[in-house]
Amino acid sequence: MDESSPRNGRTMFACLVGVSQVLGLASVVLTGVWLGQYRGGFAWDASPQEFNLHPLCMVLGLVFLQGDGFVAVFDVHRASKIPDMYSLHSWCGMATFILFCVQWVVGLMFFLFPVTSSWLRAAYLPIHVFCGLVLLVMCIGSCLTGITEKLLFTIAPTYSLFASEGVMANVLGILLVGYGVLLVYLVTKEEYRRPPNPEEESLSVHFKTLTEGESPTSP
Amino acid sequence: MDESSPRNGRTMFACLVGVSQVLGLASVVLTGVWLGQYRGGFAWDASPQEFNLHPLCMVLGLVFLQGDGFVAVFDVHRASKIPDMYSLHSWCGMATFILFCVQWVVGLMFFLFPVTSSWLRAAYLPIHVFCGLVLLVMCIGSCLTGITEKLLFTIAPTYSLFASEGVMANVLGILLVGYGVLLVYLVTKEEYRRPPNPEEESLSVHFKTLTEGESPTSP
Repeated sequence: MDESSPRNGRTMFACLVGVSQVLGLASVVLTGVWLGQYRGGFAWDASPQEFNLHPLCMVLGLVFLQGDGFVAVFDVHRASKIPDMYSLHSWCGMATFILFCVQWVVGLMFFLFPVTSSWLRAAYLPIHVFCGLVLLVMCIGSCLTGITEKLLFTIAPTYSLFASEGVMANVLGILLVGYGVLLVYLVTKEEYRRPPNPEEESLSVHFKTLTEGESPTSP
Repeated sequence: MDESSPRNGRTMFACLVGVSQVLGLASVVLTGVWLGQYRGGFAWDASPQEFNLHPLCMVLGLVFLQGDGFVAVFDVHRASKIPDMYSLHSWCGMATFILFCVQWVVGLMFFLFPVTSSWLRAAYLPIHVFCGLVLLVMCIGSCLTGITEKLLFTIAPTYSLFASEGVMANVLGILLVGYGVLLVYLVTKEEYRRPPNPEEESLSVHFKTLTEGESPTSP
C-alpha cells in the first residue's frame, strides 16, 4: 500500500463530514423557514403555532433529542380535540421514541454503571451501535411521513399544482434522506473508525474487537 | 471460545431469517388484503383499481423489483388528469428507482463484464453493498410516505377515528419497518457472513477482504 492512501482517506472523510454537516444544517434551517414563513411561526400557548415546535424539535432532535417536541403535539391535540396516536406517522414516531428511551436506559446500565460483566458488555455493544443507526434512520422515516401528513392536512388542493411550500418541503425530505445516507456511511465505514485510546483498551472496550463479536479470527 | 458458540450463532441466524421472512410475507399479504378488501381489488384498465397494483408491486418489489408498479401510477394519473411527481412520496420513490437503475447498471459493468481492473472492483464492492442496503431502506421509507398519502387521500375523515383500514395500514407500515431492521441486521452482522467459495477465491472477489477495503490488517 502506498503512503498516500491513508492521507486520501482522511481528506475524503473530512469532505464527507463537511457535506453531511451542510446537509444536516440545511435541513434544520429549511424546517425553520418552512414553519416560520409558511406556517405562522412558533408559540407555546396550545395554538396551532405550538404544533410548529414539533417538526423543528424533532429535526433538531437528530442532533439532540428532547421530549419538548412530543409535548407540543399532545398539547395542541388536546386543545383542538384532535385524537392522538392514530396516524402511521405517530406510530413510527412513538416507536422511535420508545427505542430511543430503551437504548438510553440499557446503554446507561451496561456502560456507565458497573452492573454487567465484560462478557455481557461485549455482547451488547454491537447491538447498541446497530440500534443507534436504526434510531437515526427511523427518525428520518418518521420525518418523511410527518412532512407528507402536514402537507396533505394543510395544502392538499395546491400540493399537486407544485405550490412553493410543497416543493420546499419535498426538498427538505430529500435533504434528510441524503443526510441520513451520508451519516450512516461515515459511521459504518471501517476505514473511518477511530482507533481505541489507551483508556478504552484498559477498560476492555476495544471497539474493533467488540463489534466483531464472535466472528472467526483471521489466520 | 467454546464449541457451542458457532452452533448458537447458526441457530440464532436461522431464527432471525425465519422471523424476517414471516414479517416480509406478512407485509405482502397485508398489502394484498388492504387493496383487495378495502380498495376495490386490482385491474389494468386505467381505473383506480390499476393504481392498486402500484403499492402491491412496490412491496413485492422489495423481493423482486419490477417496473410495472411505476407504469400503473403514470397510467392512472394520465387517465384521471392527476399531475405526476409532485409529492414527497413520488420524489422519494423516483430517487429510489433511479438509484436502483444506477446500482444495476454499474454493478453489471463492474462485476459481469470484464471491463474494470480488480483494483476498481475491490474499491467499488463495499459501495455496491452499502447502496444495496440504502436501496432497501429507501424502498421502505417510500412505502411509509405512500401509505400515509393513500390514507389521507381516501379515508381522511375517519382515519383519526381509528377506522379499521387505517389501523391495518399502520400495522403494515410497522411490519415493513421491522422487516427492514431485521434484514439489515442479518446482512451486516459479520458473524452471519457466508465464507467465500473456491470460485470466488480464484476470481479475487474474496468478500471479506474486499469489503474491509484498505483498513489496517490485524496483527
